[in-house]
Amino acid sequence: MILYKTNDNWFGDVAHLTSSYTMERIIKSVLFLGLYAAAIMTIIVLFELQEQLQMDTAVFSLLGVILSLFLGFRTSTAYDRWWEARKQWGALVNNTRNMAIYVDSMWPASDTGIRRFMAKHIANFCLSLSEHLRDGTKLDKLIYLAPEEEAYYTTKDHIPNFIALRIFQRMAAAHREGTINEGDYINIKAQHQSLLDILGACERIKKTPIPFSYAVYLKVFVSAYCLLLPFGLVEPFGWAAVPITMLISFALLGIELMGEEIEDPFGLDCNDLPTGDMAHTIKRNVFELLEDRTPAEEHSKELYEKVF
Amino acid sequence: MILYKTNDNWFGDVAHLTSSYTMERIIKSVLFLGLYAAAIMTIIVLFELQEQLQMDTAVFSLLGVILSLFLGFRTSTAYDRWWEARKQWGALVNNTRNMAIYVDSMWPASDTGIRRFMAKHIANFCLSLSEHLRDGTKLDKLIYLAPEEEAYYTTKDHIPNFIALRIFQRMAAAHREGTINEGDYINIKAQHQSLLDILGACERIKKTPIPFSYAVYLKVFVSAYCLLLPFGLVEPFGWAAVPITMLISFALLGIELMGEEIEDPFGLDCNDLPTGDMAHTIKRNVFELLEDRTPAEEHSKELYEKVF
Amino acid sequence: MILYKTNDNWFGDVAHLTSSYTMERIIKSVLFLGLYAAAIMTIIVLFELQEQLQMDTAVFSLLGVILSLFLGFRTSTAYDRWWEARKQWGALVNNTRNMAIYVDSMWPASDTGIRRFMAKHIANFCLSLSEHLRDGTKLDKLIYLAPEEEAYYTTKDHIPNFIALRIFQRMAAAHREGTINEGDYINIKAQHQSLLDILGACERIKKTPIPFSYAVYLKVFVSAYCLLLPFGLVEPFGWAAVPITMLISFALLGIELMGEEIEDPFGLDCNDLPTGDMAHTIKRNVFELLEDRTPAEEHSKELYEKVF
Amino acid sequence: MILYKTNDNWFGDVAHLTSSYTMERIIKSVLFLGLYAAAIMTIIVLFELQEQLQMDTAVFSLLGVILSLFLGFRTSTAYDRWWEARKQWGALVNNTRNMAIYVDSMWPASDTGIRRFMAKHIANFCLSLSEHLRDGTKLDKLIYLAPEEEAYYTTKDHIPNFIALRIFQRMAAAHREGTINEGDYINIKAQHQSLLDILGACERIKKTPIPFSYAVYLKVFVSAYCLLLPFGLVEPFGWAAVPITMLISFALLGIELMGEEIEDPFGLDCNDLPTGDMAHTIKRNVFELLEDRTPAEEHSKELYEKVF
Amino acid sequence: MILYKTNDNWFGDVAHLTSSYTMERIIKSVLFLGLYAAAIMTIIVLFELQEQLQMDTAVFSLLGVILSLFLGFRTSTAYDRWWEARKQWGALVNNTRNMAIYVDSMWPASDTGIRRFMAKHIANFCLSLSEHLRDGTKLDKLIYLAPEEEAYYTTKDHIPNFIALRIFQRMAAAHREGTINEGDYINIKAQHQSLLDILGACERIKKTPIPFSYAVYLKVFVSAYCLLLPFGLVEPFGWAAVPITMLISFALLGIELMGEEIEDPFGLDCNDLPTGDMAHTIKRNVFELLEDRTPAEEHSKELYEKVF
Repeated sequence: MILYKTNDNWFGDVAHLTSSYTMERIIKSVLFLGLYAAAIMTIIVLFELQEQLQMDTAVFSLLGVILSLFLGFRTSTAYDRWWEARKQWGALVNNTRNMAIYVDSMWPASDTGIRRFMAKHIANFCLSLSEHLRDGTKLDKLIYLAPEEEAYYTTKDHIPNFIALRIFQRMAAAHREGTINEGDYINIKAQHQSLLDILGACERIKKTPIPFSYAVYLKVFVSAYCLLLPFGLVEPFGWAAVPITMLISFALLGIELMGEEIEDPFGLDCNDLPTGDMAHTIKRNVFELLEDRTPAEEHSKELYEKVF
Repeated sequence: MILYKTNDNWFGDVAHLTSSYTMERIIKSVLFLGLYAAAIMTIIVLFELQEQLQMDTAVFSLLGVILSLFLGFRTSTAYDRWWEARKQWGALVNNTRNMAIYVDSMWPASDTGIRRFMAKHIANFCLSLSEHLRDGTKLDKLIYLAPEEEAYYTTKDHIPNFIALRIFQRMAAAHREGTINEGDYINIKAQHQSLLDILGACERIKKTPIPFSYAVYLKVFVSAYCLLLPFGLVEPFGWAAVPITMLISFALLGIELMGEEIEDPFGLDCNDLPTGDMAHTIKRNVFELLEDRTPAEEHSKELYEKVF
Repeated sequence: MILYKTNDNWFGDVAHLTSSYTMERIIKSVLFLGLYAAAIMTIIVLFELQEQLQMDTAVFSLLGVILSLFLGFRTSTAYDRWWEARKQWGALVNNTRNMAIYVDSMWPASDTGIRRFMAKHIANFCLSLSEHLRDGTKLDKLIYLAPEEEAYYTTKDHIPNFIALRIFQRMAAAHREGTINEGDYINIKAQHQSLLDILGACERIKKTPIPFSYAVYLKVFVSAYCLLLPFGLVEPFGWAAVPITMLISFALLGIELMGEEIEDPFGLDCNDLPTGDMAHTIKRNVFELLEDRTPAEEHSKELYEKVF
Repeated sequence: MILYKTNDNWFGDVAHLTSSYTMERIIKSVLFLGLYAAAIMTIIVLFELQEQLQMDTAVFSLLGVILSLFLGFRTSTAYDRWWEARKQWGALVNNTRNMAIYVDSMWPASDTGIRRFMAKHIANFCLSLSEHLRDGTKLDKLIYLAPEEEAYYTTKDHIPNFIALRIFQRMAAAHREGTINEGDYINIKAQHQSLLDILGACERIKKTPIPFSYAVYLKVFVSAYCLLLPFGLVEPFGWAAVPITMLISFALLGIELMGEEIEDPFGLDCNDLPTGDMAHTIKRNVFELLEDRTPAEEHSKELYEKVF
Repeated sequence: MILYKTNDNWFGDVAHLTSSYTMERIIKSVLFLGLYAAAIMTIIVLFELQEQLQMDTAVFSLLGVILSLFLGFRTSTAYDRWWEARKQWGALVNNTRNMAIYVDSMWPASDTGIRRFMAKHIANFCLSLSEHLRDGTKLDKLIYLAPEEEAYYTTKDHIPNFIALRIFQRMAAAHREGTINEGDYINIKAQHQSLLDILGACERIKKTPIPFSYAVYLKVFVSAYCLLLPFGLVEPFGWAAVPITMLISFALLGIELMGEEIEDPFGLDCNDLPTGDMAHTIKRNVFELLEDRTPAEEHSKELYEKVF
């Protein structure tokens, strides 16, 4: 995620143009369509086919409006996923912080074991969730893993789930032993449950893109539209049809490609959420609250600045 | 549900085109309209009726915009149902998992009977819900049904409802006997209630399509529009009217047909939710949590990959 | 409510066209406008006024787009009411079912009096709510009313409210006597409160149509637009203006009239919710849960099929 | 608020046209613009300036579409406030009713003092809230105010807030004395808190119109558009430009002015919510529930019918 | 934030035009584009290039519609942040007021220490949150800070977070000592947790503008569109192209710039929320409730009037 300040510098932002993977893809496609349009033009001019072409801009106008209405639908659904993902991670920050505060007030101040256990597992939950939503959890990203734990973890498919289960088991054990009372147990169960709810919501966002038919339909429609454009623009515009084709396909292709990218907000592209950094911020927060220190190991900055 | 990665391969996705039932339907309709337009053209040319036709593209343009605005409404309401259904099943995954965790911590570790009972009934609830939302529950899809149970189940109309009732009766009995305490009882009642709420919401989505008038109105409007198109396009475009008719009806018919399909997300079409696989995943989850094993019987893959 | 399966049979649905009151109204208006346009045409042709008319389709195009944008707003607000009403009744089904389950587990199995009381009152609440949202509750639609009760009920203005109060008084009395304990009392109070919340929400939907200015504005706008259309279409289209006027007014009038109809979803029109049948389904559910039987009196099918 | 039945009588509603303040304002503006357009036309015809004017309807068409898209945004945000306000008052009705029911079951039947206190204060809260959202609370609208209370109330800025505080103090005192138990105290605190939440939400709606820039931008845009229209319409339409200017400005100005009006739904205009009558209905409800009678003083009907 | 009354005085509001930073920016950009268009015109006329230009308004019309559809998306997402921020601060007002009421009823009336502590810390939380969402908390804006506290605070990065932690620690300590009971502790924990949730939500809104690609895309699109406009308008309009360019860029640039500004609602621009004044109002509220007085130090009015 590129950090930028809106409302500040119009052309400054535009200069970042090529640092976005999607922007590059859009520009490449637009350039390709420019070449394509020029080729079509050359053929038409060489063979003097202008007369035969009976296309009209009115039809392209109508189709363009229909297409853009539909791209608006695509954009808003993709954006909703992105924004919901951001809300879920925001809730994760709030919840883990509250959980640490409650753990600190629930167990006697002398019990450093539980504080270390909770700080480590909450941090590892978030770190593994961030990885899990990319290409799967890599165990060497987790912290304070004892070798036997690491061996045990490798037998598990779904690391964040397993960590959440361990946290709950520990709390339930403390409750059975009478270390924590009924009220505290009910209270922190709400926080714990939200861990699983956030995990489930993020998986839902990641695993359920827009329905397949819509995705195919839009690609077919946009492709057909852009490839037919030069034929429709030849007669009224002559060679000006080349830049106009590029401009219109920038408008339409751009919306489609950005929608595609933003739909899965957990990757490492410049529009994706900085979940890795968020997880490290949570790690620092819970260790500061529970052990009053910053954990030794610093992570190598991923690609982005700290975000909250 | 076809699994695909957006943002990856533009033409790869398009190649799946014909694997979608709805896409096929759209293509067939578009081909039909192409033939129809060609027939109209032939008649007009044969009888030299061009002069008599006083249609104008401007009117089609206006009608096209009105129609597509309205199709946008249709699309977003259909999509909302699809996405709400996905959220409900996501909640079902989270809830059943939590329920299993709570059951495991509420009853003494020695009580394997309750664990088997709960694992079996939660799994059967989800399996039967998936079937129920298609053509009705088939009892041979349920697991561990003793013959006398099967006989009893066949007397019941609404299997998921009945299974939910049995789960609750067992919990209420345990509460009356004093096996589980007040706090746990209140706590798990929330999870249990969510089973019925999810069931109710899925039934609502399935049983309440878009109001009838809207459905008829859209079909009449789209049909009339597509059938009149060739008349309006003859004069300005000549024979080019045939492909243009096909392009425009692809745009409009496509949106309508996809909306229709996506509105009921519980079937087996390629855009439908993989509720069968979700139910089997839940089955595996609860058995792993409550009996630490995967249940013997594996289901035959329906049509899709595992999804979460 | 007409039950139909979308995604099934394109022309099958269209055949139902005339069974919808609103569709009939639309068709009548469109026919009227066709006659009107023909009359205008005749006058113009007779008196050879074509030259004097300086209208242009561009203006109608712009006004048509503005109007349809606004009709989109009207449609989505009307639809939101319809869908919210459907959700409220869905919640009513879930809640009454849960309430019956709790009642069954809260009172000793031997207390058949309370079971009959609750089954009767929950059923009557739903039956009277359905009537109340139409033309007011008719007491002969309620079940098991003793003559003295009926006499007492006739003194009350707001029957559903009064029934809800009676249910609560009975629960509060049981709580005061110690028949039911604190936890159960708190628990079922939530279910009871939802009865009143659903009632309030339905009344809100029924009693608050779209703001008056919007309703008038749209009617004035649509009327003016449709009545002026023939003048604008004479010059470019000649006699073809008549069917085109009909097509465009079908598009615009249709949206307005459907919005009007769907806004109040509690009536008996074919788009309205089958609240009567829902109430009877709830009645059957609660009697089956609390008395293990179906109540004797069957209601005469209203106009629709059973829906859930 | 004018009560009307949609879906009933097309022209009946239109006849109410002039009873709406906003409708009058729209009609006046449209008439003014008609005169203005006629003046422009006269000048152009007198000085034969037609040739010099090189405007084109295409530009007005584009600007009209942009403007109406933006007016759609304005309309939906304004409507959302209106509808949220309606929901808040609906919730107030439900909450006060529930609160009265709980008060009745919490205190012994013999304690008429608390019943009178609660009925009076809940009623006064709603009456003062309705006034507070207009021009500030007038104390003579409140009921059963003893002279010393009235003197005390006049020292307070924010009457609804103060009344809510008094209700809570009375409940907290009863709790401290042991008159009401823990469960009831927690329970009714939820109802009490909702009083303040509803109050806060209504104040938010009232005090926060659409951001200032948007309001100014729209006014500048609509004004410029309507004033330039006649210049653009002269050439193609001649004198027909006058009614066309009026029609288009009716379309655009109307949406803007209705948005402005509906944004603050607490006034006395015909689109505003009948909060005064709602407050009186609540008063009647709580007195009927707590004292089984209707309070003596009847309010003079404001401007509207009873609404729920 | 400029306070204004909508629905009151059309031209009065427009007169405020230049008092808005964003409005100024829009006007400057529009003037710049007017000069630019005039320059282009001069070149075209001087070198008689009209013949070579084969642009057409139809393409600009299509692009304009696509662009404005997309700007609509931008506007509604920006507005949603602004409105969500307003809701969060509204919730903060309600919550702090409730918190003060509960503190007042939880501790014995004689304990003035806790009242002072809570009033001071709640007020400081809101004051520091307002600053934190601008350029970071300045400690001299906080009230009643003892010098040793100020020294301690300077060692902390995140002042609002730290203040929230102190509030909770004090409550947890009182709970451990038995000063406040279980019920009150659970109850007020909900209010406390909402402080952190509001803080988190505001940070989310501030730190997460619209995805970078969308921001760049829109700027590129709008810039290209406005810079190409004069070329397209030369032929049909001649010198009238200059004001038309200005009008169209006012329409499009305006929406983009207002969206940018409104997206971060915590600053000091005239559309931003008056969070500073809200914090001071909260301060006055809690002191009045807990110490029955207004705190001595009055803040210098920021830029706006009191808002609620």
